[in-house]
Amino acid sequence: MLAHRLIERKRDKGRIEPGEWRALALAYAKGHVPDYQMAALLMACFLNGLDRGETAALTEAMLLSGDRLDLAHIGRPRVDKHSTGGVGDKVSLVLAPMVSALGVAVPMMSGRSLGHTGGTLDKLESIPGFRTDLSLIEAQAQVEEIGCVMIGQTPEIAPADKKMYALRDATSTVESISLIAASIMSKKLAEDLSGLVIDMKRGSGALVPEIERVLELAQVMIKLGADHGCPAVALVTAMDRPLGRACGNALEVEEAIAALKGEGPPDLMSVTYALGAEMLVLAGVAEDTEIARRELEKSISTGHAAEQFQKIIDAQGGNPAVVEDPALLPQAAECEIFTAPRRGFVARIEPRAIGRGIIEMGGGRTRVEDIADPGVGFVITARPGDWVEPGEPMATIFARDRAGIGSGRLALKAAVVIADEAEPPLPLISHRVSAAGVEDYPSP
Amino acid sequence: MLAHRLIERKRDKGRIEPGEWRALALAYAKGHVPDYQMAALLMACFLNGLDRGETAALTEAMLLSGDRLDLAHIGRPRVDKHSTGGVGDKVSLVLAPMVSALGVAVPMMSGRSLGHTGGTLDKLESIPGFRTDLSLIEAQAQVEEIGCVMIGQTPEIAPADKKMYALRDATSTVESISLIAASIMSKKLAEDLSGLVIDMKRGSGALVPEIERVLELAQVMIKLGADHGCPAVALVTAMDRPLGRACGNALEVEEAIAALKGEGPPDLMSVTYALGAEMLVLAGVAEDTEIARRELEKSISTGHAAEQFQKIIDAQGGNPAVVEDPALLPQAAECEIFTAPRRGFVARIEPRAIGRGIIEMGGGRTRVEDIADPGVGFVITARPGDWVEPGEPMATIFARDRAGIGSGRLALKAAVVIADEAEPPLPLISHRVSAAGVEDYPSP
Repeated sequence: MLAHRLIERKRDKGRIEPGEWRALALAYAKGHVPDYQMAALLMACFLNGLDRGETAALTEAMLLSGDRLDLAHIGRPRVDKHSTGGVGDKVSLVLAPMVSALGVAVPMMSGRSLGHTGGTLDKLESIPGFRTDLSLIEAQAQVEEIGCVMIGQTPEIAPADKKMYALRDATSTVESISLIAASIMSKKLAEDLSGLVIDMKRGSGALVPEIERVLELAQVMIKLGADHGCPAVALVTAMDRPLGRACGNALEVEEAIAALKGEGPPDLMSVTYALGAEMLVLAGVAEDTEIARRELEKSISTGHAAEQFQKIIDAQGGNPAVVEDPALLPQAAECEIFTAPRRGFVARIEPRAIGRGIIEMGGGRTRVEDIADPGVGFVITARPGDWVEPGEPMATIFARDRAGIGSGRLALKAAVVIADEAEPPLPLISHRVSAAGVEDYPSP
Repeated sequence: MLAHRLIERKRDKGRIEPGEWRALALAYAKGHVPDYQMAALLMACFLNGLDRGETAALTEAMLLSGDRLDLAHIGRPRVDKHSTGGVGDKVSLVLAPMVSALGVAVPMMSGRSLGHTGGTLDKLESIPGFRTDLSLIEAQAQVEEIGCVMIGQTPEIAPADKKMYALRDATSTVESISLIAASIMSKKLAEDLSGLVIDMKRGSGALVPEIERVLELAQVMIKLGADHGCPAVALVTAMDRPLGRACGNALEVEEAIAALKGEGPPDLMSVTYALGAEMLVLAGVAEDTEIARRELEKSISTGHAAEQFQKIIDAQGGNPAVVEDPALLPQAAECEIFTAPRRGFVARIEPRAIGRGIIEMGGGRTRVEDIADPGVGFVITARPGDWVEPGEPMATIFARDRAGIGSGRLALKAAVVIADEAEPPLPLISHRVSAAGVEDYPSP
């Protein structure tokens, strides 16, 4: 009867109380509330909205539907980074080893690709043997031992959120600020963090494209963190083009390894350093982001960050030799150079078309249960604003067969716009949001 | 992907096209669209509404999701009556035999009790042996043979509606004018009718209490009927108190049998004659409702209506002797007189409290799969407006045990309000709605 009453109340624009959210989340996690009732409630929440208090109560309810990491005793600050998702976003693969190499614990729980966006778990799993499905106990032990773990949401963590997230995807109730914020924060708060940095993507390739809603979402999440003693900072970064050059699971791991060795593309490094600097400041190990940034660069130049990635891979059952020799990663059978069809400026490289192209080529998933081919994807060397001549190489397509090459070519044709005038791309990092409010991010 | 797209569209206040409704209803009836997606869509429809065109398309889609009766060849007009449901509403049990005894075919498909309202099927099934689950073929043959059948929605009729109705009940998406109208009319249009009369209940005990929404619902249904060549007329009748005296399945059958023998309570007879007269005029067998009414009275006084009820019971496997001897109906083990606790006017007899009381006593169902005890209920002899003295009998409680009597007593105490001044009850029949519009119903 509980679900029935709550659906009716939310349908009629009423308010659901904290105790009711808790009872509902527990009952749903245990299977006592059927999916169809939750689906009706989610649509009512989507259309009639949740106020800030309800969003906080839902977050807490989903958090309390499961267990949480217990890391207070490790005597180190714990920080994590969350990204709202994009194309070519391999930041986590660089950031987690880099930051944890500096003595800050990073208990990172990530998601899978869904829609046109990639997922950190799928990227990690392209490393032969790498396990992302550690138990809560294993994850905790690994954080204690090497200061970092990179896993998926364990069955113990926020099970109500896990079920609800899958249901939202199937019922077109994803793009709600309150539901997104509660879902992310219920998981992040379960990591027992002393701080959280959020990479808020904006632009055509982001799940929430509009800057106003991006800032609202950031503020809601930061407030939720603050309420639970987890200070959070968000940077708003550009997702009107892919981040870095590589798009596709194994290709992105390869690019991340290059980045850990000091050879990452400039946009990827700028975003990674900026997020990492905020993490170090939140962790209290650097006084300001300038100092933090120098620490991060040192962690790369000394090789400590790359070594730390090897340790993480080794601890999670993967082959650490991929860091020395990325050719050990799955490779595509076919490749082809994509060249500029005409002369002009690269006006746009549309991330959604790239992401969907990878799915077409078998390198992504349209449903959670799909299995992706890790080797396929693109390395796009042209950047928005570049001048290109006809026949000039812009990208390489990696596919498992000729049909895949064809799909990739079509995707690039749809994604890459060459025009007589350059379109100004979004600033790579435009805003910084903290409990103190929104500020413009200083341009480099 | 269809359901996903339609949910998104309706969520964003878009319009679903007729072909899409048809594809959706078929896919849902076949189990290709999961309940949780339909639940999200129904909530979006509930909150963002369907326009008249969409309501018509949904009706048609649910109708076309199954088979329909084929009665055109029987050479007789076919009319049915639908009621939006109430407490003590045994009109169908009197009306179907009475009208079909006059040569008009009545292929009546009814529902079960749900919520506080009773259901014709449950009442009929209190007659020993009576089968309401005839197949479409059996039903059609019986209409041809004796001019009437009284059954439930067969699995062949509007299966998409059948599944959707159960889902709406579980997801608080019942009280939408468009969804109610489409659900009712998809079934009624499957009866291959030449006319339909609708008993629109209003007042505190009705599913849609407010007169404005009642009139809107009536007009939507009448328009849907007209679009499909099925002229319809609605009478708005009072459900601020139970109709007649008996409330409870077997008790209501007994009262209906009395009515067929000319001994029905005045309010029941007025409503039944008024609806029946509209049926005869729609069927074209009476020129106006005055003439029709005299025909109906004759059908009672000659005993033809009672004989016809016996034929119907016999044809559907029930014991027709109950018409001669209602003591053959299931009887409650215990009974008790309920007396007036104080002096005053009977200000109100609240139907919802009565309906819920019957459920408490085991005589109703809270879920479709519950089994009801047919013998329990009330016979309420007091009427709103009556003057009562303390200790004066107002009702009889029928229960299976002393605990049931206790529940019944509590329900009557909650339902019956005695006050120093009489409250004017709603007019028994207040409006007549047809394709020509809404008119006041002439008071008797």
